[in-house]
This record gives sequence, structure tokens and C-alpha cells, in this order.
Amino acid sequence: MPRRLVVVGGDAAGMSAASTAKRALGDAIDVLVLERQRWTSYSACGIPYWVAGDVATAGDLVARTPEEHRANGIDVRTGSTVTELDLDAGKVVALTPDGTQSFGYDELLIATGAEPIRPDVPGVESRGIHGVQTLTDGRRVLDALETDPKHVVIVGAGYIGVEMAEACMRRGLETVVVGKHPTPMPTIDDDLGELIAAEMRADGIDVRTSVTVTGFEDDAEGRVRAVVTDQGAIPTDLVILGAGVRARTELAAGAGLPTGIKGALPVDPRGRVDAERHVWAAGDCVETRNRVSGRAAYVPLGTHANKQGWVVGRNLAGVDVAFPGVLGTAMTKVVTLEIARTGLGEQEAADAGFDALVVRIDATTSAGYMPNARSMTIKVVAERSTHRLLGAQIVGREGAALRIDSFALALWNEMTVDELMMTDLGYAPPFASVWDPVQQAARAAATRLGPRA
Amino acid sequence: MPRRLVVVGGDAAGMSAASTAKRALGDAIDVLVLERQRWTSYSACGIPYWVAGDVATAGDLVARTPEEHRANGIDVRTGSTVTELDLDAGKVVALTPDGTQSFGYDELLIATGAEPIRPDVPGVESRGIHGVQTLTDGRRVLDALETDPKHVVIVGAGYIGVEMAEACMRRGLETVVVGKHPTPMPTIDDDLGELIAAEMRADGIDVRTSVTVTGFEDDAEGRVRAVVTDQGAIPTDLVILGAGVRARTELAAGAGLPTGIKGALPVDPRGRVDAERHVWAAGDCVETRNRVSGRAAYVPLGTHANKQGWVVGRNLAGVDVAFPGVLGTAMTKVVTLEIARTGLGEQEAADAGFDALVVRIDATTSAGYMPNARSMTIKVVAERSTHRLLGAQIVGREGAALRIDSFALALWNEMTVDELMMTDLGYAPPFASVWDPVQQAARAAATRLGPRA
Repeated sequence: MPRRLVVVGGDAAGMSAASTAKRALGDAIDVLVLERQRWTSYSACGIPYWVAGDVATAGDLVARTPEEHRANGIDVRTGSTVTELDLDAGKVVALTPDGTQSFGYDELLIATGAEPIRPDVPGVESRGIHGVQTLTDGRRVLDALETDPKHVVIVGAGYIGVEMAEACMRRGLETVVVGKHPTPMPTIDDDLGELIAAEMRADGIDVRTSVTVTGFEDDAEGRVRAVVTDQGAIPTDLVILGAGVRARTELAAGAGLPTGIKGALPVDPRGRVDAERHVWAAGDCVETRNRVSGRAAYVPLGTHANKQGWVVGRNLAGVDVAFPGVLGTAMTKVVTLEIARTGLGEQEAADAGFDALVVRIDATTSAGYMPNARSMTIKVVAERSTHRLLGAQIVGREGAALRIDSFALALWNEMTVDELMMTDLGYAPPFASVWDPVQQAARAAATRLGPRA
Repeated sequence: MPRRLVVVGGDAAGMSAASTAKRALGDAIDVLVLERQRWTSYSACGIPYWVAGDVATAGDLVARTPEEHRANGIDVRTGSTVTELDLDAGKVVALTPDGTQSFGYDELLIATGAEPIRPDVPGVESRGIHGVQTLTDGRRVLDALETDPKHVVIVGAGYIGVEMAEACMRRGLETVVVGKHPTPMPTIDDDLGELIAAEMRADGIDVRTSVTVTGFEDDAEGRVRAVVTDQGAIPTDLVILGAGVRARTELAAGAGLPTGIKGALPVDPRGRVDAERHVWAAGDCVETRNRVSGRAAYVPLGTHANKQGWVVGRNLAGVDVAFPGVLGTAMTKVVTLEIARTGLGEQEAADAGFDALVVRIDATTSAGYMPNARSMTIKVVAERSTHRLLGAQIVGREGAALRIDSFALALWNEMTVDELMMTDLGYAPPFASVWDPVQQAARAAATRLGPRA
């Protein structure tokens, strides 16, 4: 008798686990995936580029279709919404195209993902207010754009908010972004956030910061017509919610599982929620650990979801691997401005109890004399007593953002800024100065810190 | 009485040490730099881009002029060729614009750099055969191009050879590159080298591999008119030597100092050649250590020269810092093809005694669905028993090469491919797939290696 794995949710984490386990175990495991929508294994992160027109169809964002998964021996049921988890009986109940069905399991993986945070204010249920989390959400935004709106307000200036603002601006809409924080992208320190705000404004996006949304006004047909804020109403035809997401875990909570930050499920490094009852979880619905602060964190991101799913799949196949936690590495682009961060920002380092030095340098993306040299600003946070790197942030032009990976790997290995400045990074005039920007920043920090005690 | 530092050679290593020591010690040190040419602190690596026309003037390649160094309190004497080192007496003899002079020192830094290897074959002293090492060399090549040659042969297909081939091709010359190795860029494994050859040929460069140069023919005026090889003569108007460099250490050897690989001076990690007699060396004239193989290596590169100079400068100032060795990271670009490597290649790993796995993957520089996605090929070498990364090579389009830094930092920290695949690298569709190409390659290696014993 093969073991039976039931996976709730068919996106990155769920399908990654399903595929990994099936590939390793073959006929020794039956894998059933229940997905409420019609897609599997898609890139939610790609939605802003689909809306912008860079990506032609939703299908382009799908890494593997339900049919392709089925061809690999995975029983994928789309249009199937799980309504109940019975962890003691070892079964799930789902509303499927064939009616309500019950499925027993030996192993259960909860991979229900995240959902956009909807501000708890009057009018938030008006028509014309869209989140951006699933391909269905993306389709709804594109349908709304077909109706030729003139104005859009993006509520929230995080990654999705900023990316959607660019997409809407490029489609010719009068675009307003409102955010609570004093600058766009709250995970970027305010001094660099100012550079992002300046870029967005130069691109014609109306960025309004330190603004709190207090409600939405709608018209007689229930369609949104204004975003109401503590600084007045902003008339609009369309609203996009970019105020972040929270874990989609009502189902798990309903089954009595504990939830943590933003509703996410605490899991052990193997992805186990409840080892005794064979319950696993992965992806945007789980908590993880920030390796720098040592604290629990909620970082819903496709790159983690894929790895966490892989970890669960390997463990199901009897190979002991662990998800090692995250650094909080993230990146994006606004028109030609590249933005990246990893580890702790200035305030985060203080909050985590570090006595930190902060340095900020300007550099160029290639040797300064090369025609492709572009400007970039790097900020580095380092612990004073140990000289250990704690975090880095980058804002700059083409060729800037990828350098965050060097900081991420330095952080991962708990390197000091002194050691980082002496490493052997790539050098050639089209790509870097003779001191790479990463090493210029590390050197600036090391110099300011002085010789170690 | 201030101590007196004499530096022989005013490029990257020499001026970096001079500036670092002067900045730290101020009036407590007198710094005299003797430089045989007229420039200081210039980028030799930038010469191909100057020849190509990307960089307008030699001055653009100069990071700091003699005048600027003098304003910082460093006594720079250009046009001053040191002819003798008397290490027992603690003095150097130089031929200066004011005649032969002798300078006493408390500390001596040898930073004499490298010189192009001139093949030891008949006719190599003909006119029209140029190395590319100093700005004077670059000026001579540009002067030669002014005479409107139609044909150029580049002897040697290493980094400089390939970069100069592109420069000459872009200036409209019929360009032939001859190399001894079966593919261009001998530090890149042959299978990836084939991709480089294909790119160069598609760009109109005549790449001839596995060819040995046996001599040069000249005309009645002593001007080169053909490169003679074991596969026939190649008529030409101009020859550029791109067959690598060796350390310029006749002076040091003449003073009785031992030399190693390609004539380079063995130094300790602080840059000391002879601690008792206060002799230091740094830059393209010294040996270093490859951290992966543990062996001595000769890697003349501006990025190391700057760091080694800084290390000497700090030690002169009483701060104990060490140059930690190199990984052999290198990168370049041929038209739109980016090329990078770090650590050990397939053959190098075998030579160093490792039982290694080699994997090769194709990936894209950004999410595959993005319009800016470009192809790249990554090759990874890992030790079978430990899963430790030993090296990586990348050949691909825009956005490919910078990823070598991730491999370099993984190597630096002696990471396994299993650990590298689970790190937190930057992810966003314009920059990477949900599994970064680096992690796809590490995952492919980890999968092939299987669970660790």
C-alpha cells in the first residue's frame, strides 16, 4: 500500500513538495493536491509585469500546469476548496467540482499561501478594490483596466505597491500611491527610501507618504470612487491593495493549530507543524527564522516557498534536510532604479539589541571611466564590538541590485566587514571598480570601526 | 625623525601602500615613490576599452595623478627608473630626470608590476609588435592604429588577448587571434571556451586555436609583416601580445631576492619579502596563495594589487592585517557575452588532487517569462566526499557574470553545494528565477551527489 500525501494548495510550496516527494518515492506514494483555483505552480511575483504588459499571458507565469503535474503522476484537483481539516481522523473535506468529498491521508501538507491584507475600514468591500496575490486577482485587475479607468490609487507602498504603481503608470493611468510610512518600501531605511520616492515622482507617480487610509467611498452602484485618508479624499476609479499580505490559515486555525506572526504557522526546520499527526506546512503560510536577529519572522516570498516545499518533499522521502532560515533578502526595480536589501536595517539592528555602526557610500556599477558606469548607493550595518556584518541595502541603477547577493552570502557566513573587504570578488572594468562596490562599503565600515580590540 | 618609505613603482599596489601609510602616519613617515613612467595609479585593465574608444583619454584611466598624490604629501618622482637595490645598505639607486641619484630608506616596497610575455622566437623585436601593460603601451597601440592598418594579429587568447581582439574588431580591423590552447581563455574549461570561440567568430573575429607562434617576419624597414605559426604564416600590419604577463622582478632578483612562479616574489601574508631588512612587495610582482588548492599562485590583477598595497600600508602603520589569498576569480566580456570564473576548473581540481563532480546547467538571467531574460550556462565543480564547492564558471548574456561573486563568497567560506542551494539570495522577476541560477547549479550538484554519508 502506498502512503498517501494530501497537499492543500497547488502553488510554489505545495507543488514543489509534491513533485519532490513523487520523484523520490514513485509508486510508494500517492500524491493528491487540492487547489481552489485553476492554476498551479505560478509566479505571483510576476503579476505586476503581466499587468504592465511585459508578460503577455497568465500562462507565461505558470511554471507547470495541472496537466503537466498529472503527467508526472500527481493527482491535481483544481477548483477544489478544502473546507475542513480533521487532524485526528487524518482526513480533509473539500468542496470539489464533483461535490463535497472527503480524502484520507497519511501525511498532510498545508500550503495555503497568503492573502492581501484588506484595511479594516468602511467601504473596503466596494467593487473596484483589488488585491494582487493570485492569477485570478491579476486577471481581475487587467479586466478593470479594460474598462479604461483614468485614475488608480495604490494603497500601500511595499514591494507589490511600488511594482503595481509602475505597472499602472506605464499603462497611462494617473497613479497615486499612499503609504503609512514616511517613505516608500518600509523595509528599506528612510534615507534610501527618499531616493525611491524621488525616482517614483520623477517617473510621474504621485507618492504620498505618512498617510493613513480611513475608508473608501463608493457610488450608487457600489463602485469605489475615492480613497479617504487622514489627509483628505483621493478620487479614483480603481484601487489596488499593496499593503502586504498575511498567512491564509483560517483552515489550519480552525483545526486547532496555533498561529503566530500575521497568522502564520510555526514549523520546525523540516516543515513539521505537528509531527505526531503527520502535519507539515510550507510557503507563504508559515513562519520562518531570521538568521541575523535569531527571531521568528514572516517573509512570504516565492524563493522561500520553493525551498520550503523542497525540504518537506525530501523529508517525506526520508532524507533529513532542514530549511535554514532567511536573511530577509529582497529586491525590486522601479523603472530604472534597482532596490535591494538583506539582513537588518538601521532600526531593525537597534531593535534586535545590536550596537551597530551604519555607513553609507556612493559608488558606480562598473569602473567609473566606463560608458556603462551608473550610480549606486550602499548602506551597510555592522556590529561595533565584533565588526560582524548585520545588513546592507542598495539603491542604484542597472547593475546595482544583484550585488546584494554578496552581502547576503557574507551575512549567511557571519563574516566581518574586515574579512568581506578582502575577499576575491570579480573584477573587470565593465562590471566593477578595482574595489568592488560591496568591498568599498565594507572597507568604509571597517575603517570607521578601526582595528579590532 | 620620520621614518622613510621608498616605493619602487607608482601604480596600484605602490600608490595604495603609499597613500594608506601616509594617511595613517602623517608626518611620522616620509614617502618617496619612484616611477619610471609618467603616470601613477592607473587602470591597466582599462586599456582595451581606451583602445576600443569607450574611454576617451589615458587620463580617464588615471585614478590619481602624481600631482594629486603630491598634494597628499607623497613625494612622487616620475620618469625615475630604479637601477639598483642595495638591501644591506638600505638604499636604492635611480636614474632620474636630475641624473643618477641614491635614496636611503627605512622601509622598501617593491611594486614593480608585471610585463607582457614576449614569445622567445625570431623577429619578436620587430617594430609593430606591442604589449598591453602600461599606459605607454596603450598609447603606442593607439598611435599604430592612427597609421590605418588593415590587419592585426593578437598573439595569445587570454583575457587581454580577447579584450584587445574585440577592441580591434570594433575599430574595423581584420582581426585574428591565435592561441596555443584548444579554446580561447585557457582559465575557462574547454567546453565553455567553445562558447566563447563561437561568440568571437560570430562577431567577425578570426579565432585560431591550438596554434603555436614560431616567429615573426618583418619587412626591409624592420616592421612586422607576418606572424609565423606551426600552421602557416598570417600576414599582418600589427601584432598585439596578449599571451599573459610575468612579474617584473629583474631588479629584485639582481638584489639577491628569490623569485617563484613567473618570476614573482614570494611574500608573507603581510607583504614582507625580507622582514629583517624591511623589504616589502605587493601587486603584480608577487606570488599569492590560492585558497582552494592551498597552492602558491601568480594572479596579477588590479583588484589584488590594490588590496595587497593596502595591507602593506596598514602594516607599515602598525596595524596587523594580512592578505588572505585569492580564489582565482576573474571576469570579462566579449561583445555581449559575459564570462566569469572562480576557484578550480575541472582539470585544475583533478590536478589539485580532488575527486570532483562536475555539473553544467543552462539558466536565464532573470525569470524566464521576463522580456529581459537572457541565456547563461553555469558549470560547478564540487568535491564528491565533502560536497564542498571547488569552483564555478559562467558564460552568458547580460546579467550572467556578476553571479560569480556568489560562488566566490561560497568558496571563500568553504560552503557545500547543499548549503549554497538553501541560502537567501535576492529574488525578483527582473533579476532572477525563483531559484537563482547560482542555486539551480548548486542544487543540480547536490542532487547528483545524493545525501551525504
